[in-house]
Amino acid sequence: MTPSFDQLKNQLKKLPGFGVRSAERIALHLLLEKPQAAEDLLNALEHAREQVGQCPVCGNITERGLREDDFCDICLDTSRNRNLLCVVEQIPDLISMEKSGAYRGLYHVLHGKLSPINGIGEEDLNLVSLKKRLAEEPIEEVILALSNDIEGEATCNFLKENYFDPYNLSVTRIGFGLPSGGNLFYADSTTLRSALDGRRDY
Amino acid sequence: MTPSFDQLKNQLKKLPGFGVRSAERIALHLLLEKPQAAEDLLNALEHAREQVGQCPVCGNITERGLREDDFCDICLDTSRNRNLLCVVEQIPDLISMEKSGAYRGLYHVLHGKLSPINGIGEEDLNLVSLKKRLAEEPIEEVILALSNDIEGEATCNFLKENYFDPYNLSVTRIGFGLPSGGNLFYADSTTLRSALDGRRDY
Repeated sequence: MTPSFDQLKNQLKKLPGFGVRSAERIALHLLLEKPQAAEDLLNALEHAREQVGQCPVCGNITERGLREDDFCDICLDTSRNRNLLCVVEQIPDLISMEKSGAYRGLYHVLHGKLSPINGIGEEDLNLVSLKKRLAEEPIEEVILALSNDIEGEATCNFLKENYFDPYNLSVTRIGFGLPSGGNLFYADSTTLRSALDGRRDY
Repeated sequence: MTPSFDQLKNQLKKLPGFGVRSAERIALHLLLEKPQAAEDLLNALEHAREQVGQCPVCGNITERGLREDDFCDICLDTSRNRNLLCVVEQIPDLISMEKSGAYRGLYHVLHGKLSPINGIGEEDLNLVSLKKRLAEEPIEEVILALSNDIEGEATCNFLKENYFDPYNLSVTRIGFGLPSGGNLFYADSTTLRSALDGRRDY
């Protein structure tokens, strides 16, 4: 429509879940219908870009500068079971688990899963910190909450053999309830709860 | 999750079509997965906020400062039929019409429709400029492309009586093809084309 409008539309179109029409709709909303929304969004995004970082322990998001070490709220929560570690692929998976209210241990976010076809190997996952945690923290049980697909399965196998078995940890994998090919982020709380209850030895 | 993250999520949640999960997904995407996307989006939004304005003639979006008068590309396009005026409610409706390729006249964007229940009256619509156009431009035929609902109908009646009949203009309203209660923005090109072809005297 106009160069600046098209530029904004094209940036919006790159976001996950956006098509041409939703990009146009949001661009018009921000520019003409609700200029205040654009102002607020700009401020929130700029602020969050400065403030939001990753927890050096588990890989969850954390607020920078609140505490010396930038640890996330979950890692610092002394009421949680520190013998239990839940391994997830992505932060949205952790958010889903937290919303289900079915889990009160710690997390480790891999930020991906092994995928030779996409060129994602061991070095691309958040594993240096995992090795350190296994050596230093009182972890006794590991719950693998990875996707129910081939890459998730391969990643579980790899982690069990190379990371958890050397420490003789009890390793389970969530299984019942998550549909084949399904993604943790879109599962509802009841499904996640039954998947946690029905976890099997791995 | 963290104060800054939640703030960004809440701003995103206010956008049309956004729920909690899509807001979380986009926030994580912008902050962690694709920091460059956040940078590009910030720049595009800031730039567009400065550059995008409304055409003083038809109400379409226009790029500010390119030309002295800030007229939009459509109003300046000398290849278009300047005897034909299509009245739409919103800019997305104009975008849909343009995409259909079925129309080559000029537009007038009302930025709404009469709606007593929502307190939207004559003075809230883009009508001062319409009056001026009718007096000054060589408009011969008007196509009313408003929503197929009661408020759209009432707005068509009002405009015909008060704006178009005094000039003895040929007034038609698109009709066939647009489903009852339907919105122009979500109609496909074929539907819009048949609606234009099958327009009836009004």
